[in-house]
Amino acid sequence: MAVYTEVSDDLLQTFVHSYGLGELLSYKGIAEGVENTNYFVQTEKGPFILTLYEKRVRSEDLPFFLGLMEHLAARGLSCPTPVRDKEGRILRTLADRPAVLIEFLEGLWVRRPQKKHCYELGKSLASFHKLGADFELKRENSLSVSSWDPLYRSFSDRADEIAENLHQIIEAELNQLNQAWPEQLPQGIIHADLFPDNVFFLGDKISGLIDFYFACNDILAYDIAICLNAWCFEQDNSFNISKARALLQGYQTIRELDDDELENLPLLARGAALRFLLTRSYDWLNVQADALVKPKDPKEYLRKLNFHKTVKSVREYGLGDSI
Amino acid sequence: MAVYTEVSDDLLQTFVHSYGLGELLSYKGIAEGVENTNYFVQTEKGPFILTLYEKRVRSEDLPFFLGLMEHLAARGLSCPTPVRDKEGRILRTLADRPAVLIEFLEGLWVRRPQKKHCYELGKSLASFHKLGADFELKRENSLSVSSWDPLYRSFSDRADEIAENLHQIIEAELNQLNQAWPEQLPQGIIHADLFPDNVFFLGDKISGLIDFYFACNDILAYDIAICLNAWCFEQDNSFNISKARALLQGYQTIRELDDDELENLPLLARGAALRFLLTRSYDWLNVQADALVKPKDPKEYLRKLNFHKTVKSVREYGLGDSI
Repeated sequence: MAVYTEVSDDLLQTFVHSYGLGELLSYKGIAEGVENTNYFVQTEKGPFILTLYEKRVRSEDLPFFLGLMEHLAARGLSCPTPVRDKEGRILRTLADRPAVLIEFLEGLWVRRPQKKHCYELGKSLASFHKLGADFELKRENSLSVSSWDPLYRSFSDRADEIAENLHQIIEAELNQLNQAWPEQLPQGIIHADLFPDNVFFLGDKISGLIDFYFACNDILAYDIAICLNAWCFEQDNSFNISKARALLQGYQTIRELDDDELENLPLLARGAALRFLLTRSYDWLNVQADALVKPKDPKEYLRKLNFHKTVKSVREYGLGDSI
Repeated sequence: MAVYTEVSDDLLQTFVHSYGLGELLSYKGIAEGVENTNYFVQTEKGPFILTLYEKRVRSEDLPFFLGLMEHLAARGLSCPTPVRDKEGRILRTLADRPAVLIEFLEGLWVRRPQKKHCYELGKSLASFHKLGADFELKRENSLSVSSWDPLYRSFSDRADEIAENLHQIIEAELNQLNQAWPEQLPQGIIHADLFPDNVFFLGDKISGLIDFYFACNDILAYDIAICLNAWCFEQDNSFNISKARALLQGYQTIRELDDDELENLPLLARGAALRFLLTRSYDWLNVQADALVKPKDPKEYLRKLNFHKTVKSVREYGLGDSI
């Protein structure tokens, strides 16, 4: 929640002129976004978001992220469209940082998602998977199952500061998931971070998916597993089976899940819970005293992990007769 | 530079409906504003700023600030216009805080003001003083000359942490200013905080003055003195007499300064420099370890104070033959 890089008015005026968007009318730093600096920018041609990529985004990944946005937007997915400058470039440099101007997307992210939102989310996620199928670039998932063990090792000696016996829980889970992780499931480009704050709604309909900076190639159903974790638990950490059913039903109106995918969903959901437990634990233990962003509670994902460990089949996610 | 209060989408939708501005289309927290929480809000009727007043603004002062904005906007000064809800109310409550919706003002604040900007500033400041003359509410300046001594006492034992012998410098200055402060000069409503980030330009013309939360009744020429400090020094702290001349000339195209005002300007400029030296020193010494906002350097205003102490007459501010 911060502007990490200040941009002067002179610099931004020159930058905007290079797009042929008329004069710069106003700009304000946005107090959102943990990874990057974002400005809301108004020109004579309308509103835009200016993103300056700070060091947490690897610049060699930017062609993948920006190309994917353009690819999906061109195929009708509602997502931010990067703007090309007069010379046809998307990726630019501003204030010594990689920078991109993106069309402003109206919409609100839903603080308390309901069943209807989960249904629409499922549909959009499936469209994302379908429309991404012919995108030509690839990006490995740097937070895939094979990364979890080294990530855990980097803080294992302090894991129990977060919760009693957390080291045992994580190690047992890593052992099981490493052995059982399915290799044969359909793969493709996944969003990998489709939390409620990355999905904009206008009324009951999705106006856009944003923040593609974790997108990568991985198991498609793993993306659903991430959403089950992010959208289908209540604030008291109880699982809401109606929301999960709505998510899965919405998804399957666009892309049918095969038996293998359905059967593996509980395992994938455990993996997704572990992935966020690990990254949140790391952030929690490594937070800087002067951090502008408060780290999120890792224990939320320990509770979610514990839930998924009790799940015997996809029926417990609401799909009564599908398998 | 922060959003202190998070507002949920449900709450904001209901709030926006009560104004009859159509549906809420988007909102983003703005990473500006030290005192209050600000959101950029788009509805079907256009863009607005939502301000939630945090505890540093006294709620009993809000009718003065908001009434003044409405008064000046109605008389043609470019400044943010508070919006009335369906019941005619300006001041509302949202998320347990006083809240107000204000029309969005286009424009950029100038990071490096030039002479032409100072000239326009002078004109707008004089219009502010003229148009405020018949505003019916009054507000004492809580940072007037009489407040400086108690403010200084609150940190006097630590003053020398900021600069060598600062306690002697401040005490000598307080003595002199308390004795010599002019009582007979024309008074009225002053902005009292017209720094470059509170003045928006579109091209070379001012599109609006913002942030009226220090406005109060005081000596009109003291407002000019604040601007001389805030606009007419270079980054190396040298005084730019051309900018000062432009500011004073611009001002006098709208409101003529009398001989008494001109004669007292160096003294008022010392007072203005001392006022910001004192508040910045206080903030510097009392900054919280977890503060989101980095305090501004008080020594900048010590250097400005030292300059004004050398000034013998308003000629040194560029008004060659006016007195």
